[in-house]
Amino acid sequence: MNIKLTIEYDGTDYHGWQVQPKDKTIQEILELALEEILRKRVRLNGSGRTDAGVHALGQVANFIWTEDIDLWRLQRGLNAFTSPDIVVKKVEMVSDSFDARRDAQSRLYEYRIWNQPWPPAVQRRFTYHVHQPLELSAMQETIRALEGGHDFSSFQGTGGDVEDPIRKVYHNSIHQQGDLLIYTIEANAFLRHMVRNIVGTMIEVGRGERTSEAFAELLQLRDRTRAGPTAPPQGLFLVEVKY
Amino acid sequence: MNIKLTIEYDGTDYHGWQVQPKDKTIQEILELALEEILRKRVRLNGSGRTDAGVHALGQVANFIWTEDIDLWRLQRGLNAFTSPDIVVKKVEMVSDSFDARRDAQSRLYEYRIWNQPWPPAVQRRFTYHVHQPLELSAMQETIRALEGGHDFSSFQGTGGDVEDPIRKVYHNSIHQQGDLLIYTIEANAFLRHMVRNIVGTMIEVGRGERTSEAFAELLQLRDRTRAGPTAPPQGLFLVEVKY
Repeated sequence: MNIKLTIEYDGTDYHGWQVQPKDKTIQEILELALEEILRKRVRLNGSGRTDAGVHALGQVANFIWTEDIDLWRLQRGLNAFTSPDIVVKKVEMVSDSFDARRDAQSRLYEYRIWNQPWPPAVQRRFTYHVHQPLELSAMQETIRALEGGHDFSSFQGTGGDVEDPIRKVYHNSIHQQGDLLIYTIEANAFLRHMVRNIVGTMIEVGRGERTSEAFAELLQLRDRTRAGPTAPPQGLFLVEVKY
Repeated sequence: MNIKLTIEYDGTDYHGWQVQPKDKTIQEILELALEEILRKRVRLNGSGRTDAGVHALGQVANFIWTEDIDLWRLQRGLNAFTSPDIVVKKVEMVSDSFDARRDAQSRLYEYRIWNQPWPPAVQRRFTYHVHQPLELSAMQETIRALEGGHDFSSFQGTGGDVEDPIRKVYHNSIHQQGDLLIYTIEANAFLRHMVRNIVGTMIEVGRGERTSEAFAELLQLRDRTRAGPTAPPQGLFLVEVKY
């Protein structure tokens, strides 16, 4: 039996999704909860990593289980054995061939910028505070250059070397919602720190420190040393993984 | 000089606004910060109390200060001396006669209900989780009875006795926003626990446990023992105080 989990988490207190030798991760907490319930160690196959401090509204993982299981009790159990900052929203039986990582057609991320002179109290764990006014229309124009298939090496974080740095961005946009600017991007897959590096560079455009043309050139340069700073993790949400 | 502060706070870790003998309160933290900056004890005059665990996006308070003061530095200082769950959003000089409590024309509150089968991870500190489906249109119809001037004794919390329990509700409404149901109410003033008692009773209507007619009758009864349970504090926000 192949079981698919859809998971929401507040990543503030975790060292990201993937199991690490020392630090507390979401995957580890869920695998320990599964072990409590199933009395056997299983390995969760996540759709992809999220970095330390990054949140998810719809992370997806699957695991193989060969014995009898009541899915509703499993979901109840998982939510009872994890702390309230991790919630299993859905548990489904899927076809044997389903692989949460390999079969993902696209990932949708959202990045929340608190663009007010003073920091947020209520939203402080879930937004990046930029106190200078950002020019929304300049950012909107700029990010159109990212759509389509590109070598995104310029936006790849250090240590994230992959053989093929080409990713396909299906769409990306930024809009205002109250005190927030919300950036949304959907792509087939992402390089390490790609969204946060795009956001950090886009903010430079919003501040008038980098032109829209310079941003488009940067993409062509495939030179990670020329991008803006990596925006901090707490503004980033993995919203959905599509299959 | 009369100085007006507009304050946002995440009330999770506080015992409400008003100074108490033992527990940590927002007012106390702000008065201690003012003392650090001004080297004198001042008393803040808040627009009204908020209960333990209730949040504010726009609480208002004022204080009198007779010496020289740089308002921008005062705001910087207040935000430096308080923890990140309290933010002073605005500092203004106002007329000598301004009184944050007495001069308030109306208060606007919002209550956020997480109406999904599974609890929220990201929003867990800022919503009340109701897992049963709620019938939105029944609740919308019901709460119309609250508009206008009424004796709200039926929705007054224990220990909140006032001489005149008549309050004027200017408008109230509930709408869906993603996974949330958001209830909004503006009135000239509120009785103790009034919003949370209205929400707890309205939820009974949404669940089909109380009819719209019974809700309207309850208002006429002026009997606090007949209302629904008090909804928990973490869903409640003081959004704005109008002058």
